[in-house]
Amino acid sequence: MRAVVYHAPRQLKVESRSAQDPGPGEVRIAVAYTGICGTDLHILHGDMDGRVGPTAVIGHEMSGWIDAVGPEVQGWSAGRPVTVMPTRSCGHCHACRRGNTHICHAMQFLGIDSPGAMQSLWNVPADLVLPLPGGLPLEHAALVEPVAVAVHDVRRANVAGGDHVVVIGGGPIGTLIAIVAQQHDARVVLLEPDPFRRSVAAELGIEALDPRAADAVGFVQERTDGAGADIAFEVSGSAEGVSTAVDVLTTRGRLVMVAIHAQPRPVNLHRFFWRELELFGARLYQREDVEQAIRLIESGAVPAARLISRIEPVEAVGAAFAALESGGRVMKVLLDWREPAR
Amino acid sequence: MRAVVYHAPRQLKVESRSAQDPGPGEVRIAVAYTGICGTDLHILHGDMDGRVGPTAVIGHEMSGWIDAVGPEVQGWSAGRPVTVMPTRSCGHCHACRRGNTHICHAMQFLGIDSPGAMQSLWNVPADLVLPLPGGLPLEHAALVEPVAVAVHDVRRANVAGGDHVVVIGGGPIGTLIAIVAQQHDARVVLLEPDPFRRSVAAELGIEALDPRAADAVGFVQERTDGAGADIAFEVSGSAEGVSTAVDVLTTRGRLVMVAIHAQPRPVNLHRFFWRELELFGARLYQREDVEQAIRLIESGAVPAARLISRIEPVEAVGAAFAALESGGRVMKVLLDWREPAR
Repeated sequence: MRAVVYHAPRQLKVESRSAQDPGPGEVRIAVAYTGICGTDLHILHGDMDGRVGPTAVIGHEMSGWIDAVGPEVQGWSAGRPVTVMPTRSCGHCHACRRGNTHICHAMQFLGIDSPGAMQSLWNVPADLVLPLPGGLPLEHAALVEPVAVAVHDVRRANVAGGDHVVVIGGGPIGTLIAIVAQQHDARVVLLEPDPFRRSVAAELGIEALDPRAADAVGFVQERTDGAGADIAFEVSGSAEGVSTAVDVLTTRGRLVMVAIHAQPRPVNLHRFFWRELELFGARLYQREDVEQAIRLIESGAVPAARLISRIEPVEAVGAAFAALESGGRVMKVLLDWREPAR
Repeated sequence: MRAVVYHAPRQLKVESRSAQDPGPGEVRIAVAYTGICGTDLHILHGDMDGRVGPTAVIGHEMSGWIDAVGPEVQGWSAGRPVTVMPTRSCGHCHACRRGNTHICHAMQFLGIDSPGAMQSLWNVPADLVLPLPGGLPLEHAALVEPVAVAVHDVRRANVAGGDHVVVIGGGPIGTLIAIVAQQHDARVVLLEPDPFRRSVAAELGIEALDPRAADAVGFVQERTDGAGADIAFEVSGSAEGVSTAVDVLTTRGRLVMVAIHAQPRPVNLHRFFWRELELFGARLYQREDVEQAIRLIESGAVPAARLISRIEPVEAVGAAFAALESGGRVMKVLLDWREPAR
């Protein structure tokens, strides 16, 4: 079988490995498609060498079929289409004990801390596997994980019908947040400097604005008769994004922090005080978010096909990563792991 | 009658003025006691000259009796002990229309934007007046307004029994927040560098720590078996206070922003993301907070007498402000407006 293996910064190789039998409590999945995430790019750049060792198999966005069932596993049989929630929590840390297993302090993230999805046959704990509806194309199902992130973010924000929502950053996660928020009948504006990403948003029926060309705060003020937005999602990771998110909110507005800010950012805390604003960190997803993501893709509410820019053969993994790195005309890029036999 | 009048930065004078009849919808209150707030110090320093004009009567923490009832006012009669909620909302701005009248965008704050409580006879809109229970000493009732701030802050934090709470800043508001949180059976640690304020806290049964001498984050970690605090109140207004508040929290912990930060502060947003922390701005109070404050003082749950450091005659207003400015051995300082006749 084949696997995408990280060796050192900027060194990803497609290698041949021998398949392993699933261990107790595990199933083996024949991988169909894997998505490439921003985190995978960080791994490629060596940013995550503290967690990702050499010869690690990466990848955590995927779809596939049950291939074999290990000892002590019930309820699964070969051929069943599935996806994986790639987060394994410890069950006894302070986060887990309070039910926040998704932000477990000792989280083992599949594809970072343990072998990932970019291999033909992947052994994973059976309790992380979710069934997929029969009619759902598996290339679409490879988007379940990022959609689950968006579902979780929108749930943290408690988005309701009629809410004015500003999404700052129109990459895959920002775009998915905009789509999911619109499913809640929110009125969404997406701020994104890249024209290709804005054009994707426009095709999906999302109003998109270039924050470098337009006065985004003024635009939202006008749109809301001077009130400001109910909710802002900071997905850009930029200092400007944070400041826009704070400025754009109405009284008691909610800012959801989705992006990773590697350094502290100046925040107008006076405005938080004065307008009783609220800020919610949002990370990963809970099982119900993944289940909801599957439903949204199945129903077409999330138009997965329109978010998939390219599907490449596994051997083209280098070109696929390069396309994402260039930041050019791509949203989601998938690798196709299907064997000719299927 | 007498009044404390602001003329220019550092110029407060006690002046003689003639009493006015209450207008339609107003009552006239014979003021008993007024408290001096940090905001009053800001006015003295000229920081609020944009809102407080020359010859303005200041003050907004008070107790007194109904002295006269204006036209179109029902339900009040002379002699009734009262306090005033000094916030007048417009009723039609974006905040008011959503029920957040306490953070009205066009708020008229009595004692800042219109004549305040530091006068023998004060005309105020009857709908801002709250009755006081008969047995409540009026010097204690002069603390209702700052206690209402603390009640509102604790309510925004949703403090529950057993919660680990860290209060950063042990001035009057921080100390009152600690007291009110303890009334909710929270386990409270107060961080305060000033030894006098720590000693007041200790007398009130509040554990107080010097954040300059001790590792506050380490202390809370140890206290909580490594989990961190459920809730942090930032009442210090310092950059260090913000950073401690973020570092001290447990997963999904809540930071309540009580202090005024005149400039943007660096905030570790990665920790907000990683631990799904939450931040809530909290400003002023709603009517239910004021009513709760009255009950807490009446029941003795808030030991008002122990928070009142000095009661000065009106003529000593200069010395009273100076005592607060020195930041020395004082918590609350009151002015006594009672006429010998009462």
